[in-house]
Amino acid sequence: MKQTTANQNITAQLETIFEAFKTRTIRRVFFVACGGSSALMFPSKYFLDRESAAITSEIFSSNEFIHRNPQSLNTESLVILMSHKGKTPETTEAAKFAKSKGALTVSLMYVETAPLADESDYTVNYSWVSAGHMEPEPEMMNYAILYRLSMGLLYVKEGNKKYEKLVSSLEQLGAVFERVMKQVTEPAKAYAESVKDEKIIYTMASGSNYGVAYSFAICILMEMQWKHSHAIHAGEFFHGPFEILDKDVPFILLMGLDETRPLEERALTFLKQYGEKVLVIDAKQFDLTGIEEEVKGYLAPIVINFALRIYALALSKATGHPLETRRYMFKVPY
Amino acid sequence: MKQTTANQNITAQLETIFEAFKTRTIRRVFFVACGGSSALMFPSKYFLDRESAAITSEIFSSNEFIHRNPQSLNTESLVILMSHKGKTPETTEAAKFAKSKGALTVSLMYVETAPLADESDYTVNYSWVSAGHMEPEPEMMNYAILYRLSMGLLYVKEGNKKYEKLVSSLEQLGAVFERVMKQVTEPAKAYAESVKDEKIIYTMASGSNYGVAYSFAICILMEMQWKHSHAIHAGEFFHGPFEILDKDVPFILLMGLDETRPLEERALTFLKQYGEKVLVIDAKQFDLTGIEEEVKGYLAPIVINFALRIYALALSKATGHPLETRRYMFKVPY
Repeated sequence: MKQTTANQNITAQLETIFEAFKTRTIRRVFFVACGGSSALMFPSKYFLDRESAAITSEIFSSNEFIHRNPQSLNTESLVILMSHKGKTPETTEAAKFAKSKGALTVSLMYVETAPLADESDYTVNYSWVSAGHMEPEPEMMNYAILYRLSMGLLYVKEGNKKYEKLVSSLEQLGAVFERVMKQVTEPAKAYAESVKDEKIIYTMASGSNYGVAYSFAICILMEMQWKHSHAIHAGEFFHGPFEILDKDVPFILLMGLDETRPLEERALTFLKQYGEKVLVIDAKQFDLTGIEEEVKGYLAPIVINFALRIYALALSKATGHPLETRRYMFKVPY
Repeated sequence: MKQTTANQNITAQLETIFEAFKTRTIRRVFFVACGGSSALMFPSKYFLDRESAAITSEIFSSNEFIHRNPQSLNTESLVILMSHKGKTPETTEAAKFAKSKGALTVSLMYVETAPLADESDYTVNYSWVSAGHMEPEPEMMNYAILYRLSMGLLYVKEGNKKYEKLVSSLEQLGAVFERVMKQVTEPAKAYAESVKDEKIIYTMASGSNYGVAYSFAICILMEMQWKHSHAIHAGEFFHGPFEILDKDVPFILLMGLDETRPLEERALTFLKQYGEKVLVIDAKQFDLTGIEEEVKGYLAPIVINFALRIYALALSKATGHPLETRRYMFKVPY
């Protein structure tokens, strides 16, 4: 793989971390972050749940992690934290808390120096581009780094070969993204025009895709567009939430390629029958040439998320509400 | 404890299950159910997370559990399932799936015979009364049985003494409920009148109380009142969702007595500053005489849930929309 200096740096950071994995017993992984950063970790937990009998994992919002104080957090734990600018106070506190329990702490952030880095054993600096732009090297983006870490962990500890498939597939992800961008740019504009005045838009998914639905609901719709939202789990839909479905209630259904796809398919059938404002983002619609079959299910959420960022940008243009506008975040004390 | 025949039966069922716990290694507990039944399990997971270093736990919606196929499910797993009438197909399938992996399966249901019972190693039959009515023996209700099981597990396996505090406290819960009913009946009516025409009402909580917020959002508001809703985690609130808060957006904040209360208090401060339609159900407002100090945090969600059921009934009267009315559930194929 021909790598830029930035990617070489990330690879070197990861290799140092893999060496640390080798020297320690790791029985439990805690994914600890807030909001959008936490949502990014759901696919990695899905991977660990499916692939390891010996290493279990949890996702906690940073302050919940500290105050809940799980007794299974100890010297045999790996705590993976993330904060875009490394300045989320709860996440920095969580790193400190994890270290006080003797856990190995690895933090991901976009910047090179930050309070979170100071409190962590290791850091990895991912790359980032704003919505609607291309990722120059997708293997350096936050989702990819999280997979490189979690799949790398099972590669080092259990000889799980998915890691190799991941690495070669990530090299092809840029080409996939280019095709997705061409494919969804116009549909995204049309969709954005059709829902720009909606007060509420639900999202739905299952398995490795649920975090993407959560992220779009809380970060894009609620935070950046001030629209009411809720990420509904496609399996839970039929046990309460579906009663609010009507022809005029907008839903965005994400359909991935993992083993829980039957749950999303069941939701699709129902949405089609009783809803009219339904957007389906189906990974099957995209040309994933170059992605290895064995990791397609795991990588689908990254592709879906890329598509959704194009929808987010189109929505912000249609509503005239820039994605950067906030009323409270970073503006008032909280 | 003077017990009715029904409670003697439950106690006998639990004692048989505790004997089974003694004969097996249990490293991992899976709480598996759908919707409102799943929500009831959150406090028990909170308890296990806080109290055991050796036994970890997970909550999965039934179909997610099957399709995700967690590799850590094995002969050293305990799978606790629940379905009110024991007829939820996904949950029955989940019991079958768990047994195929060699796990010990314990199912809770209201009825005595059901498909779920047929697929489970053991069953416990809880008692149930509809919203707005008293629980004749709270130690027989679903929440209480789940705690008797999870605290009983750590009592048997690790000598955790919370189980004894639980048992004596549950005997006092009926008197607590009576006082709560007197205290909230009028405020619930007034609140219901004030929000009966709202299209969306958010709920919020953290820790052991989050499941109660989830249940009220998806079962009461969405399913039974056809109002839009979303259970926001009080720690996640500040990382996206709070941007939708405005004077005219209704929130119900649950405040418990567990270690995550600071998260709920932080949310309260913000809601008070920027919201106007805020209902706070604070366990501190209730007279919990008779509940042992050491389990107050764990039992608070049960008390809050009881209070919320009075609000649910008042809301249904104010809206003229009975809690039993459905458009899809049990009416159309899905």
